[in-house]
Amino acid sequence: MAKALLLDLSGVLYDGDVLLPGALEAVRRVQGSDLEVRFITNTSQKTRVDLLAHLRGFGFSVEEPQLFTAVDAARQWLQQRDLRPFCLVHENIRGEFDDFEQDDPNAVLIADAADGFSYANLNRAFQLCLEGAPLLGVGYNRYFKSGGEVLMDVGAFIVAVEFAAGIKATIVGKPSPEFFHQVLASTSASAEHALMVGDDVFGDVEGALNAGLPACLVRTGKYRPGDEARIDGDFALVDSVAEAVELALAAA
Amino acid sequence: MAKALLLDLSGVLYDGDVLLPGALEAVRRVQGSDLEVRFITNTSQKTRVDLLAHLRGFGFSVEEPQLFTAVDAARQWLQQRDLRPFCLVHENIRGEFDDFEQDDPNAVLIADAADGFSYANLNRAFQLCLEGAPLLGVGYNRYFKSGGEVLMDVGAFIVAVEFAAGIKATIVGKPSPEFFHQVLASTSASAEHALMVGDDVFGDVEGALNAGLPACLVRTGKYRPGDEARIDGDFALVDSVAEAVELALAAA
Repeated sequence: MAKALLLDLSGVLYDGDVLLPGALEAVRRVQGSDLEVRFITNTSQKTRVDLLAHLRGFGFSVEEPQLFTAVDAARQWLQQRDLRPFCLVHENIRGEFDDFEQDDPNAVLIADAADGFSYANLNRAFQLCLEGAPLLGVGYNRYFKSGGEVLMDVGAFIVAVEFAAGIKATIVGKPSPEFFHQVLASTSASAEHALMVGDDVFGDVEGALNAGLPACLVRTGKYRPGDEARIDGDFALVDSVAEAVELALAAA
Repeated sequence: MAKALLLDLSGVLYDGDVLLPGALEAVRRVQGSDLEVRFITNTSQKTRVDLLAHLRGFGFSVEEPQLFTAVDAARQWLQQRDLRPFCLVHENIRGEFDDFEQDDPNAVLIADAADGFSYANLNRAFQLCLEGAPLLGVGYNRYFKSGGEVLMDVGAFIVAVEFAAGIKATIVGKPSPEFFHQVLASTSASAEHALMVGDDVFGDVEGALNAGLPACLVRTGKYRPGDEARIDGDFALVDSVAEAVELALAAA
């Protein structure tokens, strides 16, 4: 019985500046039902404020507490430990970390820095980690789709630093079970009564399954034929978020 | 019984432009014995010609056929398969691939590109691999030391592309057993009668052991205390190449 629906953003609801067909109607439909809806993203090229504006610009109705981002989870993780992060992040979100002391860093945060993934910046992250600084990552995402092009995502750069320094990162976004559970804690649903919908078979689907949530892979966004065979476990495979919503409502 | 000595270059004989203490005398000594000496490197920031000049500039006596580089092994691998490589390599060695057709690439070569490891270049490599192009790497080296600084090495960027594209690279340099065997084939020694000397516990020592060669880890170059505990297997741990040469001569 589905009580909560967790929706990934990019590749599920929209692709860059393009709304995906049927997404707006599907989200409206489920928001008119008894299901609680949450928006959950590893995207780290936009601030929380800009993400909300982006969603609302498409016409989505999103209350501020319904949005959960890996960047927020990273902020919390660093704050709780009183760390001074070296932020290898996109220029767009640098301001989200203005309240952290960043001189003489004793931690490394890697988010989707895009062109910020230079040899010099990666070496700085690597050198700190080699000296013992903890490495924090927003996700293990392999690639994402933007404007019809596939681009390397943050996970690739995290594994690069892990490999070079011989360490393991702490991941705060998807596929971390803690992240899914944090989102669930804002609803009245337990894990088995939620449904995670995403286009990333690893971060969204495998992550949700490992956290005890049923999951649904959509054939939009970064989905490539055969992705469903890349992980173990039972999950639904559907053409779009509209079809995922049908599944959730039928199980409600 | 040692019959051949395989010497890594950077971190064993020299560090950048600095000759390591005792290295010149040690190599001269072993070259005056019955042992056959070979120089074997994954370095990919210098051409073969420049490497020979660099070694000879320190005073080392090196015959051209005694030097084995991963870049040469990469050239051979690509030539044998008649491939058109996208070369993510250092500007210094770009000319080594001038005889390859590189328009419309159907393979990817990753060497130590240093500042060439930009987000744009890595994405180009990733996109080709995602479409099925084979990925060739000069080594799985994690980091190297240059001018007293540790810097991420080629292995980190290879694992980044492997992870993003969901593929495995073919490694032509160390630790590939084929590379060690190719070097050995130029000597009269079998694997068990050779000794590999290096400062990289993975590429040099673990690679040699997996190829059936005895190995010796030197506490110079990139060596960090505790490196010897990072792999399984029996190998010697010595302070310098001079001590490694003593070992080899004592066993000759």
